[in-house]
Amino acid sequence: MYEPRKEDKFSFGLWTVANRGRDPFGEATRPTMSPTHIVKKLAEIGAWGVNLHDNDLIPIDASASERDRIISDFKKALADNGLAVGMATTNLFYDPVFKDGAFTANDGRVRSYAIQKVMNAIDVGAELGAPIFVFWGGREGTEVDFSKDHAESVKRTREAINFLCNYVKDQGYNIKFSLEAKPNEPRGDIYFSTSGAMLGFIATLQYPEMVGVNPEVAHELMANLNVAHVVGQCLDADKLFIIHLNGQKYARYDQDLRFGSEDLNGAFSLVHMLETHNFQGSLEFDAHAYRTEDEEGVWDFARGCMRNYLILREKSRQFQQDAEAQDILKSNDIKCDSWNAVASGYSRDTAEKIKNSDYPKQEMSERGLRYERLDQIVGEILMGVR
Amino acid sequence: MYEPRKEDKFSFGLWTVANRGRDPFGEATRPTMSPTHIVKKLAEIGAWGVNLHDNDLIPIDASASERDRIISDFKKALADNGLAVGMATTNLFYDPVFKDGAFTANDGRVRSYAIQKVMNAIDVGAELGAPIFVFWGGREGTEVDFSKDHAESVKRTREAINFLCNYVKDQGYNIKFSLEAKPNEPRGDIYFSTSGAMLGFIATLQYPEMVGVNPEVAHELMANLNVAHVVGQCLDADKLFIIHLNGQKYARYDQDLRFGSEDLNGAFSLVHMLETHNFQGSLEFDAHAYRTEDEEGVWDFARGCMRNYLILREKSRQFQQDAEAQDILKSNDIKCDSWNAVASGYSRDTAEKIKNSDYPKQEMSERGLRYERLDQIVGEILMGVR
Amino acid sequence: MYEPRKEDKFSFGLWTVANRGRDPFGEATRPTMSPTHIVKKLAEIGAWGVNLHDNDLIPIDASASERDRIISDFKKALADNGLAVGMATTNLFYDPVFKDGAFTANDGRVRSYAIQKVMNAIDVGAELGAPIFVFWGGREGTEVDFSKDHAESVKRTREAINFLCNYVKDQGYNIKFSLEAKPNEPRGDIYFSTSGAMLGFIATLQYPEMVGVNPEVAHELMANLNVAHVVGQCLDADKLFIIHLNGQKYARYDQDLRFGSEDLNGAFSLVHMLETHNFQGSLEFDAHAYRTEDEEGVWDFARGCMRNYLILREKSRQFQQDAEAQDILKSNDIKCDSWNAVASGYSRDTAEKIKNSDYPKQEMSERGLRYERLDQIVGEILMGVR
Amino acid sequence: MYEPRKEDKFSFGLWTVANRGRDPFGEATRPTMSPTHIVKKLAEIGAWGVNLHDNDLIPIDASASERDRIISDFKKALADNGLAVGMATTNLFYDPVFKDGAFTANDGRVRSYAIQKVMNAIDVGAELGAPIFVFWGGREGTEVDFSKDHAESVKRTREAINFLCNYVKDQGYNIKFSLEAKPNEPRGDIYFSTSGAMLGFIATLQYPEMVGVNPEVAHELMANLNVAHVVGQCLDADKLFIIHLNGQKYARYDQDLRFGSEDLNGAFSLVHMLETHNFQGSLEFDAHAYRTEDEEGVWDFARGCMRNYLILREKSRQFQQDAEAQDILKSNDIKCDSWNAVASGYSRDTAEKIKNSDYPKQEMSERGLRYERLDQIVGEILMGVR
Repeated sequence: MYEPRKEDKFSFGLWTVANRGRDPFGEATRPTMSPTHIVKKLAEIGAWGVNLHDNDLIPIDASASERDRIISDFKKALADNGLAVGMATTNLFYDPVFKDGAFTANDGRVRSYAIQKVMNAIDVGAELGAPIFVFWGGREGTEVDFSKDHAESVKRTREAINFLCNYVKDQGYNIKFSLEAKPNEPRGDIYFSTSGAMLGFIATLQYPEMVGVNPEVAHELMANLNVAHVVGQCLDADKLFIIHLNGQKYARYDQDLRFGSEDLNGAFSLVHMLETHNFQGSLEFDAHAYRTEDEEGVWDFARGCMRNYLILREKSRQFQQDAEAQDILKSNDIKCDSWNAVASGYSRDTAEKIKNSDYPKQEMSERGLRYERLDQIVGEILMGVR
Repeated sequence: MYEPRKEDKFSFGLWTVANRGRDPFGEATRPTMSPTHIVKKLAEIGAWGVNLHDNDLIPIDASASERDRIISDFKKALADNGLAVGMATTNLFYDPVFKDGAFTANDGRVRSYAIQKVMNAIDVGAELGAPIFVFWGGREGTEVDFSKDHAESVKRTREAINFLCNYVKDQGYNIKFSLEAKPNEPRGDIYFSTSGAMLGFIATLQYPEMVGVNPEVAHELMANLNVAHVVGQCLDADKLFIIHLNGQKYARYDQDLRFGSEDLNGAFSLVHMLETHNFQGSLEFDAHAYRTEDEEGVWDFARGCMRNYLILREKSRQFQQDAEAQDILKSNDIKCDSWNAVASGYSRDTAEKIKNSDYPKQEMSERGLRYERLDQIVGEILMGVR
Repeated sequence: MYEPRKEDKFSFGLWTVANRGRDPFGEATRPTMSPTHIVKKLAEIGAWGVNLHDNDLIPIDASASERDRIISDFKKALADNGLAVGMATTNLFYDPVFKDGAFTANDGRVRSYAIQKVMNAIDVGAELGAPIFVFWGGREGTEVDFSKDHAESVKRTREAINFLCNYVKDQGYNIKFSLEAKPNEPRGDIYFSTSGAMLGFIATLQYPEMVGVNPEVAHELMANLNVAHVVGQCLDADKLFIIHLNGQKYARYDQDLRFGSEDLNGAFSLVHMLETHNFQGSLEFDAHAYRTEDEEGVWDFARGCMRNYLILREKSRQFQQDAEAQDILKSNDIKCDSWNAVASGYSRDTAEKIKNSDYPKQEMSERGLRYERLDQIVGEILMGVR
Repeated sequence: MYEPRKEDKFSFGLWTVANRGRDPFGEATRPTMSPTHIVKKLAEIGAWGVNLHDNDLIPIDASASERDRIISDFKKALADNGLAVGMATTNLFYDPVFKDGAFTANDGRVRSYAIQKVMNAIDVGAELGAPIFVFWGGREGTEVDFSKDHAESVKRTREAINFLCNYVKDQGYNIKFSLEAKPNEPRGDIYFSTSGAMLGFIATLQYPEMVGVNPEVAHELMANLNVAHVVGQCLDADKLFIIHLNGQKYARYDQDLRFGSEDLNGAFSLVHMLETHNFQGSLEFDAHAYRTEDEEGVWDFARGCMRNYLILREKSRQFQQDAEAQDILKSNDIKCDSWNAVASGYSRDTAEKIKNSDYPKQEMSERGLRYERLDQIVGEILMGVR
C-alpha cells in the first residue's frame, strides 16, 4: 500500500543521497558515493527518477573526453536500471568564483562565465533527457545591501534567463525552466526570496510560458510561509512545474530533513493540495540524511521520504471521503447569486444590484463555522485514530 | 534640513495616529481622536496627506445622510488645512462578518457583501480625490488549511479584483489599485503573503496595468525578508505605487513601530533604494505610537517618522558622494563584452562565442571585493562619524 | 480510551473558553460566558480543574461585598460540579495602569499597586484552594531599551517575588509560585524571555524551593525553542510545577491554538517527556477557540485539547513498547567504565586513567546511529500506520 | 578617539580571522593563516587578546612533541607581540566522532573521550594563561527528539562540568568556566538554548561560583531575544564572565557578521548596558569576514568590529549626558514609600499598609511616558544628528 511505484514519479537529486554530512561546524561523516551506484540503489528502492547539478556528475574542470565518458556511463546506468532524469540544473554556488553571485555578480566576467556554464549544463540535461532545467541562485544576493542595486540585479537575472530561453529554443531542446526560490543562506539575503516573487518575475520575461517554479518546503518555511498556500497560488497560475519536498523547523538554518519528519501538519496539507489538484509533475526530494548516519541510514532516509508521501496521500483520500468533514465544508459553502454574477464578469447591472442588496450581516457574523471540529477530524485522520 | 515639506509627500493613515493602544492583552490607553482634528494636526507637523479606511471616517452602520455630512466636513477640513488624500481603502477585517475572510470567505453572501462594501468605499475615495485604492486582505487566509482550497481562494480574489477594476473604469474614476501583502496575523496564515506573491497575482488579472503593490516594512520583515530587495523587484516591474513605512523586529507579532526606530540598517538601505530610484509616490506611515503614550506622544511619534526618513535621505546622498565607497563599487563593476552581448539579446553567434571563451576563473575567485570596508563606510555614514 | 478522567488532571483557564475572539484587527465574535456556566461545562466534558486570573472572576473595581458574593457563588459551582482550581494568578497586563509593566514599571506607585493587587489575588487563590499561584509578567519589558536598566528590572522583580513569598508564608497559605516566561507580545521584548531564564532567576531568590516554572508551548516556540528540551531541563531541576499546553506556528504572533493542532511532532515529543517522567502536575490548556467559532465550537476546541493529549499519551506508550525502536536505542547506548567513573564523581585517579585511555575514535566516528530509521518509526506510530 | 587600546580588552578567536569562507553550499575562498601570523596582525591593529579552541592551534592528531613545539612557538608570538589569551576552549563539534554530541552522546565512549579532550585543552589553556575556559556544546542536541532523554542529557552535562571543575581545582589552575548557549545549528535543536537556560543550569552545579556565561549576540538573536535584556539578567546574577560580540539578522542561520553591521539599534543598546554597568571582562569578537573577502578584507572586518564598539561607547556616554533624555527618565522614575518598603524586605506591617493604600490609578494610567520622544533622541544620537 505504501510501496513506491514508477507512476508516483518520485525522484532524488544525486546531491541528496550523496550528501556526506559536512556542515559549517563539522567535517564530512560519510564517504563519497558514485553516481552509478546511486542510480542502481534508487531503482531498487522504487524511485522513478534522479536529478542532478552538472558538477554532481561531471567535475567542474573535467576535459571534454572525461565529460563524454562520464555521461555515457551514466546513461547506461539509467537505462540498465530504468531510471529517468527528472530535472537537471547548474551548480552556480559552490565554486569560489561565484562568491558574489552568478547572474548578479558585480564582475561582468563572472556573469558571462555563469552563462557559459549554464549552456553547457543545459546540453548535458538535454543529452540525458531532462524535461525541466532548474535555476537556484544560491549566491544571488547580498550581505551588504549597498554593494548592489537590487532593481539592476533583477534586470540582470532577466537578461540571463531570456538569453538562456532563447538558447534552448535555438537548440531545439524540449526543455522548460523552473525557478527555485530561497530567502537566505548561503547569502545574507537571496534575491527572489519566495516562490511568489518568482511568479512575479516570470511575468516580466520574454517567454513566460516557458518558465515555472519549483517551491521547496524548507525554503518557504524559512520565510515562515504556509507551503500549501504557496502551492495553491502556483497551481492557480499553472506554474507548478515540479515540487521540492523535505522537512524543516521554520525560521532557522536550511535543514533539508526527510519529508514528513517535521511540520507533519503542513506536510499533510501540502500533499492534500497536490493530490486534490491532480499534480502530475515529478515529486522531487531535496533533502539528505542526518550526519549521524552511515550508508544504510541514507537509504532509510530515502525510503522514508517516499513512504511518508504515500501515507499522507492515503490520508488525503480518507479526508475526501469523511462524511462529517465533508458535511462541515458543504454547510459553510453558502451559494449566493450576487457572487455568481461577480464571478461571471462585470456588468453595470450587477454592480447596481449588489450595491442595493441587503445581506444578513448579523446572521453571517454569528454563524459558527465548526472549524475546530473540522481541524480535529483532520488531526485524527493524520494520527490514524479515526 | 530635516523639516518635512509638502513635496516630500509624507502621509499618515487616520487609523495610525488615532490608534488607541488596544492590544490582545490590554485595553485602550488613549481617548478617541476625531478625523478633523487629525487633519489639522497632520498639516501642522508638515504632512502632505492623509489615508483612510472607509470606517475610519464613516461608521459601518451610518445612514446615507450621516455619510454625506461626515464626508462634507472632512473635505472641508482637508481644504482648510491643505491636505491631500494619499489613498483610500476598505476595512474588510474588523467586523465579525469577515471572521473567515471577505473575498475568500466560504460564505458567498459575505463575499458579495465585501464587494458592496468596497464599491461604496471606492465611491468615498473618488469623492475625496484619492488616486490609489488599497486592498489589504487581513482576514483572507486560514488557521485550518483543510477549510479552503487555496487555489480557489486565489481565483476568488481575482474575480473580485477584476470586477472592481471594471467598476472603477465604468465609473470613470481616476483610481489605481494597490495590493498590500502580509504573511500572517490576524489569520494563522494570510494569502498572498509577500509583495512578491502579489506581483505574481497581478500578472493573472484582467487589467494588470491598473494594479500595483504597496510593500509594508513590518509585513515583509515578519517573513524575514529584506525590504530593499523586495522594493527592488517592485521598482523593476514598475509596480511600486506607494510604500508603507514603519518599524518591526523581524519574525514576531506585527509591531507597527515608528519608522527608523528598529532595523535602522534596513531602513537606511530602503531609503537609499527609494531615493536612488527617484521614487515619486506617497511615503505612507502605517504605524502607531507605543501604548505608553498620551496624545503628545502620538505627535512625537508622527514627527519622528518623517524626521527619520529625512535624516536617512541625507545620508543616502552622502553615500552617493563618498569617494572611497564609490571607488569600491566602481572597481568591482568589471565590464565584459560577453555580458554586454547577453544583455542586448540572444544570437547564436553570441552563444557560441561565450561557450568558447576562457574566463580567468582563478583571478575572479581570488579578488577581494572589499565589502567589509564598504559596509563599514555605510555604517559610519549611518552613525554620523564620517 | 481517549475519554478524559479526573486523574488526568486536565484544566482550563476561565479566560480560555471565555475568550471572545477579539484581536488587534477585529472585534469580539462571541458573547460573554459566566464563570459558573464554564465550571458546569468543564465538568461535563471531563476536566479536572479550572484556572483563573483575579479579574476573570472579580471585576477590577468590585466592592468587597461583590467580591465575597462572587467568590461564594464560584465556590458553590466548583463544589456542585466537583471541579478543582488548578492555579490562580493576577492580571497585571490588561488595565492601562500597567502599560509600562507592573513590578518593572518606572513608576514606583504602579509597582506598589501591583503588589497590592497580587496580595489580594493570592487571598482569592487561597480561598479557592489553588495550590499554585502563577506569575506571567506580560507587560514587564520594553519597546525602548533605553527606558529601563534591565539589571535593575531583574532586581525589582526579585524584590517583588521575595516579598510575596514572605506574604504567603506569613499568611500560612499552602501555595507555591510558578513563573511563566514569554519572549515578546504584548511588549516589544518581555523580560525573562524563556523558561530557562526563569530557572536562572529562581536561583537568585530568597526561597528558591518555593518557586517553579510553567513553560507554555506557544511561548517557547515563539523563541524558536524545542519545548521537550525545555521541559527536560525543568524536570531535571525539579521545577516543572505545571505546564501550559497549546499550539503555535513558531516565530510569529501568539496563537494559543488547540493543543495538538500545530507542530504535532513537537506535541508528541512533549507528551512523551511528560509521560516517561511520570509528571503529576496539572495539565493546563492555555489556548482558545478560533474566532470563527460560536459556543459549540468552543467546546469542540476544549474536548479536542484533552483528546489529543490522550491520543499522544497512548502513542508514547506504543513507542516505549516498540521492539525495533527500543533495539536502536539500546544499541546506541554503549556503556563505558570511564564514563561511569566520571558520573560517580571526580578522583585524580579517574582523571589520570581517562587521560591515558585510548578510545576507538575511528570506529565511534563511522558507526551509523540509525536515527533516520528511529525517527521514521516515531512518525509511523504518530500517523497510526505501525 | 575610536582607536582601540589594550585597556579596551578586545580579543578575537583564532578561528574568526582564520575563517576561510567555507559554508554548507560552498568551498573555502581564502587560504589558511598561521596562528603566529594572526597574533602579529591582531597586535598591530590594537587587540588586547586572542582566543582559541585546542584544534585552532594543535591538530587533533598531533604528537606530544608537536604539541609542545606549537605551544612554545605560540607563547613566543604572544610575548613578542604583547598579546594575552582571553579564553581557551575545546573543539567538541568538528570531528565526526562528535556527530551525536560530546557530553550528551549516546555512546559512553564518546562522552569519555570528550572528557579526555577537554582536560588536555584545559592544560593548554592553563599553559597559555587563559583565565577563562569556555564550553560551547555545538553538537549537544538532537534532530530526533526520541533519540535521547533530555533530562538525562542535562544530568550528563552536569556530571561532565562537575568533573572538570574538580579537575581544574585539583590541578590548582586559576581558571573559571564560561558556558555559551546557542538554540540550533549545527544540531536541529541544541540543549541549553539560551544564556538564561545556562544560568538555570549553573544553579544545579557542584561549584556554581566557578561557572558563568558568555552570551553571544548572534545566538540570542537566533532565538529572537533581546540581547541587552539577556545581558541585564547575567549582570544581575554576577555571571557575565565574557561576551561574544557579532552581528546577525534575527531568526535565520548563524551569520557571525562584523559587530555593529546588523541590528545597530540592538548593538547600541548592548554597549550601553555593558558601559553603564562598567563591565570589565574581555570583549570577544566571535565573527568572521564575508566570503567575498581576501586577507585585506579580513583585517577590515577586524578593525571594524573594534571601531564600531568604540563609536557606540562614545554614543552611550552622550546619551548619559543628554539633558532632555535624562529629564524624561527622571520624570518617569516616581518614588513611592510603599515600594521602598517592599524593596527593603517583607514585614506584616508593610503588607497591611500596602493592602490598605489607595494608589491614584487613573492618574497613573493616563500619564504619557514620552518614550516615543526618548527613543527618537536615542536614534538621533545613534545617527549622529544630535
